[in-house]
Amino acid sequence: MMKQFSCSLIAFLLLVTSVNAQTKVMGFQDAHAVQQLDWEKKFDGQLQASNLDQWMKFITSHPHHVGSPQDKANADYMAALYKSWGYDTELATYYVLFPSPKTRVLEIVGNKNYKAKLDESVLAADKTSGQKAEQLPPYNAYSADGDVTAELVFVNRGIPADYDELARMGVDVRGKIVIAKYGGSWRGIKPKVAAEHGAIGCIIYSDPADDGYAQGDSYPDGGYRPKDGVQRGSVMDMPVYPGDPLTPDAGATKDAKRLDRSEAITIMKIPVLPISYEDAQPLLQSLKGEVVPASWRGALPITYHVGPSVEKVHLKLAFNWDIKPIYNVIAKLKGAELPDEWVLGGNHHDGWVNGAADPVSGLVAQMEEARAIGELVKQGYKPKRTLIFCAWDGEEPSLLGSTEWVEDHQAELKQKAVAYINTDGNSRGYIGAQGSHTLEPFFNEILDQVTDPQTGVTIKERKYAQTLVSADKGSRAKLFGNKNYKLGALGAGSDYSPFIQHLGIISMNLGFGGEGDGDQYHSVYDSYDFFTRFEDPGFAYGVAMAKVKGRVMMRLADADVLPVDFSSFYKVVNEYTGEVKALLEASRNETEAETRMLKENMFTLTKEPGKTYGPPAAKDAVPFLNFSSLENALVQLKNSTDEFQKLYSKGISLSADKKAQLNTILYQAEQSLLQQAGLPRRPWYRHEIYAPGFYTGYGVKTLPGIREGIEQRNWKEAQAHIEIVAKTLETYTAQVNQAIGLLR
Amino acid sequence: MMKQFSCSLIAFLLLVTSVNAQTKVMGFQDAHAVQQLDWEKKFDGQLQASNLDQWMKFITSHPHHVGSPQDKANADYMAALYKSWGYDTELATYYVLFPSPKTRVLEIVGNKNYKAKLDESVLAADKTSGQKAEQLPPYNAYSADGDVTAELVFVNRGIPADYDELARMGVDVRGKIVIAKYGGSWRGIKPKVAAEHGAIGCIIYSDPADDGYAQGDSYPDGGYRPKDGVQRGSVMDMPVYPGDPLTPDAGATKDAKRLDRSEAITIMKIPVLPISYEDAQPLLQSLKGEVVPASWRGALPITYHVGPSVEKVHLKLAFNWDIKPIYNVIAKLKGAELPDEWVLGGNHHDGWVNGAADPVSGLVAQMEEARAIGELVKQGYKPKRTLIFCAWDGEEPSLLGSTEWVEDHQAELKQKAVAYINTDGNSRGYIGAQGSHTLEPFFNEILDQVTDPQTGVTIKERKYAQTLVSADKGSRAKLFGNKNYKLGALGAGSDYSPFIQHLGIISMNLGFGGEGDGDQYHSVYDSYDFFTRFEDPGFAYGVAMAKVKGRVMMRLADADVLPVDFSSFYKVVNEYTGEVKALLEASRNETEAETRMLKENMFTLTKEPGKTYGPPAAKDAVPFLNFSSLENALVQLKNSTDEFQKLYSKGISLSADKKAQLNTILYQAEQSLLQQAGLPRRPWYRHEIYAPGFYTGYGVKTLPGIREGIEQRNWKEAQAHIEIVAKTLETYTAQVNQAIGLLR
Repeated sequence: MMKQFSCSLIAFLLLVTSVNAQTKVMGFQDAHAVQQLDWEKKFDGQLQASNLDQWMKFITSHPHHVGSPQDKANADYMAALYKSWGYDTELATYYVLFPSPKTRVLEIVGNKNYKAKLDESVLAADKTSGQKAEQLPPYNAYSADGDVTAELVFVNRGIPADYDELARMGVDVRGKIVIAKYGGSWRGIKPKVAAEHGAIGCIIYSDPADDGYAQGDSYPDGGYRPKDGVQRGSVMDMPVYPGDPLTPDAGATKDAKRLDRSEAITIMKIPVLPISYEDAQPLLQSLKGEVVPASWRGALPITYHVGPSVEKVHLKLAFNWDIKPIYNVIAKLKGAELPDEWVLGGNHHDGWVNGAADPVSGLVAQMEEARAIGELVKQGYKPKRTLIFCAWDGEEPSLLGSTEWVEDHQAELKQKAVAYINTDGNSRGYIGAQGSHTLEPFFNEILDQVTDPQTGVTIKERKYAQTLVSADKGSRAKLFGNKNYKLGALGAGSDYSPFIQHLGIISMNLGFGGEGDGDQYHSVYDSYDFFTRFEDPGFAYGVAMAKVKGRVMMRLADADVLPVDFSSFYKVVNEYTGEVKALLEASRNETEAETRMLKENMFTLTKEPGKTYGPPAAKDAVPFLNFSSLENALVQLKNSTDEFQKLYSKGISLSADKKAQLNTILYQAEQSLLQQAGLPRRPWYRHEIYAPGFYTGYGVKTLPGIREGIEQRNWKEAQAHIEIVAKTLETYTAQVNQAIGLLR
Repeated sequence: MMKQFSCSLIAFLLLVTSVNAQTKVMGFQDAHAVQQLDWEKKFDGQLQASNLDQWMKFITSHPHHVGSPQDKANADYMAALYKSWGYDTELATYYVLFPSPKTRVLEIVGNKNYKAKLDESVLAADKTSGQKAEQLPPYNAYSADGDVTAELVFVNRGIPADYDELARMGVDVRGKIVIAKYGGSWRGIKPKVAAEHGAIGCIIYSDPADDGYAQGDSYPDGGYRPKDGVQRGSVMDMPVYPGDPLTPDAGATKDAKRLDRSEAITIMKIPVLPISYEDAQPLLQSLKGEVVPASWRGALPITYHVGPSVEKVHLKLAFNWDIKPIYNVIAKLKGAELPDEWVLGGNHHDGWVNGAADPVSGLVAQMEEARAIGELVKQGYKPKRTLIFCAWDGEEPSLLGSTEWVEDHQAELKQKAVAYINTDGNSRGYIGAQGSHTLEPFFNEILDQVTDPQTGVTIKERKYAQTLVSADKGSRAKLFGNKNYKLGALGAGSDYSPFIQHLGIISMNLGFGGEGDGDQYHSVYDSYDFFTRFEDPGFAYGVAMAKVKGRVMMRLADADVLPVDFSSFYKVVNEYTGEVKALLEASRNETEAETRMLKENMFTLTKEPGKTYGPPAAKDAVPFLNFSSLENALVQLKNSTDEFQKLYSKGISLSADKKAQLNTILYQAEQSLLQQAGLPRRPWYRHEIYAPGFYTGYGVKTLPGIREGIEQRNWKEAQAHIEIVAKTLETYTAQVNQAIGLLR
């Protein structure tokens, strides 16, 4: 009896301890935190993997690209579900330019053995692969129409550095058709850079070294791309602006003012076509000229040459340039206390074909999250702020649905949007997250509280283990103990882009991944059969994503004081500043060395007999830039964010009025990171800290005005943006100081 | 007139300056230096590329492996030529165990489609490729006889680290046949390590990623290995001892005492066969199990798996275990003043088939060098020391000719051999040299005085340009200005091995290369046709090699004081000491990190679903070792070598007697780097500074006793060798001090 009592006491003490440990939630007063954690437990209890399975089966049952019957059917299906879960739901419809292929011809002229197949085989093991009549065949959306015949040149990844190498080999692509490997940049960069160099056509293929048998067994034996699998995708010049090419900065409503197609600068200037590696091999074998540099090699069983080819290649493409309706599903749950503060979540619903991994895996996790919240509401849960779940249409062609909706509602969003949380494809493995760095401590708290379905440790613990296991043996020692998950920076790979890049709304992008067995990205084989065999069998990581994102959404909706940490932002901007300085220094050192080597004739002395590879072009000297304004602004920012950090916990005790003022500053401060004039040559992109690279596409460039100025040797622009970023940070610091004023 | 006079004066002054600049030759008093340079100019004038061409055509006209008629014919041909050039020439004949294939079968059991071809096609473009009856077919010499049938496992390069990876994947090779890629180690390591792990057979193939179409166009379109090209080669356990397996440490004379074959520990324990990538592909495709780690992938158009295979593989090999005669050509030119000081040069003459690049390209350069010296003698040139040119037989099977001759003459060589200068294959490109580091300044002086045939700058200048051009862009800045060519360390890749490793004779190995277009190493396609199209058309770099090696030989033969620089030796041993310390530290850090990760379960937490890849085995902690004896020895060595350096120039003014004493110390000091007990488990290897790696083969391990102790986690042995090396350096320092005594 005594013993039993003692055990119960210990158990009780343990419980108290563990409740105490768990009841601290960033931004919540203690009593609210206890409630919140209780709702989260109930939320977890609601989540059912079988729902994800059932919805994925329906949504991926037919091709569901923009303009397809299934696309509309899916929007209606989801709208009906959201309504049934208690959401105020609408279809937000826009009308966008959406080209689809009419003619696709690729052949070697006069060679009967090579006319590209441009088609993906029907596989018995993949039930939807045979829906030929409903599929969009492989193509690149927003390619130009064209009928070109020319010699072929291999340009590796097709990025600017590759053309520098080609120039050293004496190869010019003017008047030629280029063939580039997928990878190393967003696909739209390849034809853009090709056109800048005078090419008249562009072919993009998936090399098996990157995306095929070299990586693992081909589908359907394994999950890797088979020989005739093709990656579709947009080649619109998204780094200039995304969304409908005809309505920049405005919603593409039925009666919107539209540009003429000839005025739309984001439509590619030359014809572009994606092909499989089976189709690519004869083209690559037709190339003469130098053998490629070692880093350019792929995994086809041939010697890769840069070309040009002797035989000419004929590429003929024509498209239906239709205006099509797109249907965003917008589902709202009105906030009980602060209905005009919106917490948004989104995932697109259109696919290139059946689109199971991309995007339905993330979409169905969000649906289950919304359904579970609907159930909580029935049990009495009342979100303080308004929750809005969005299922975007037309993401694949270039973020059409999200961009048009954001452009259409920009004034309201700037006022009301607290944050936008994006998901897209999701599969088994490790958490991956990018976003506004003010949310980093908040997000880490959640990663500490959600369990990994495969191992039973927390999501954060497993990610930490992976960081160590995948690190160089020599660099592991310094990684121990630092379990903080560092958010990546946001580029433009999915629907968060208009929110953060155009409006400066705090954003995140979340996804699990890294243990899916292969990929069928943008192919007919990205199907329910593929996904459930190779990516997330049983949808365990779909449920885990619902748990993570559900917490992010609900905590943002319910926080007393928004969980925004300005110090994390300071830290990362300070790091980025260090990076651009180092980049400038490296550029100076490399330029000086190369200039000296040119003077001392070293490149000519090392020219191989019989090879054309010559010296690089001479470069201008790298000047010293004046970073002082930025450095001074960083000192101010550090001082203010340190001070804010000390005072943050006082926010909870503020009066309702002052708390409201504080929260508004907390979520709108990010907007002061925008520069209304936008970035050079692309005014749509206004964020001075994060942007997609002008020459990388999806890939982010942090401090883009400075970094790209240095990369492109535009020293004046780099210097100008040092001043702009400094001023931007000063404005941001003023916001932080206002928040401090409220807290003092 | 005035003007003309002034011009002549300037010309005169320039001439004086330039003569002065050129008349400093290390180890020569000024008047002798002028003479020496004059003879070198005459020497250069003698060299004719057409001789190299003519001799290569004859020597490669038929397969000339050990025991072939052409092998003997070549020895006779060369002996007659050397005699005609004025050399005292003999054939030094030994009788060695030389296995040749009787039966070779490789097949997948029960699979009619796979019976390995094991044969290289006849090519019209390659005139000697059709000499089928005379060729040794592809095989590995000193493989065991065997008839084995078992599942197959892919072991990547087949080095110990690969078996650690396999263990993590749950793959055991006991009772299996392994297939390994060529590369990453000397070939003999692969079956040795396989046998240590319990494998019963070993197949080695050339992957096209390393040696085939991935690198460049296949022969005969380009110079890279074609699909059925095979690399022959020895798999004798050379890191234990090279040369005839039956007569270790003794010359294999007719009546030498021989081991029984069963006692010869250097004969491989399991059957081993080399195959082409065409023959390898079906074997690799038969493998099941895990997909290989990314770094193990080759360039065949398949997904590489580790295995085991389901179908069994049958490997049957039998050999003729004959004793064959080998014929070394030894050609002497007696020294006029110091006939008992020998300067030796050597290159082997046997090939695996027609052997044009390997070895005849280097052989004919040496012949032209010797012929030109013979011509100088007719003009009055009298080498001070004796010059000996050697054409070794049986290098390919495992340095048979050189090792037996060195073992046979060891007492005399220790007394008389000043240095041994080796060459082997040679092709266009850049100088490559390894050797005793005391010769580094001497060799650099020569590189400054020989012109690169392709660019007209000095050999050294072109090598310097290559160092910068091939360096990382970020690391170039620190390379400017340092034109010193750093000698590599000698392993066991060619006939220098018995000289330096067994006897401690100062040695070098020289070759141009890096711009040959491909390689047909140890294949029937290493032919005159191949070599003259792709490797050194016109033999310009053969002539350049004669110029470089001719200078090395003649300057060593004629120097007043031998050009030995002890300080360079100190510098390099000090560097090696830093390396082994860093290796120990890295091992400690890596072990600590891995141990902690095992404790924290990180490898289990990151196990991929459905994969067998598990945690690494636990490792013992890395102790701290006591380096103080070695550090103290290095301080003494530094002090003495610094002092010697200051006094070196005084050597020229010594009396003849003292000068003779000094020279003897200079060339015999290297012998004090030997440890008579030899290295652990291989007493034949006695050099404490340089040795071939026990688990790398050709590849050198510097401070081998310490370094391999650390690598193999044999801490006691590492500590013991720190003491041994310290004592060795003390003995060496004593030699330096003796030299200082003579100079004071």
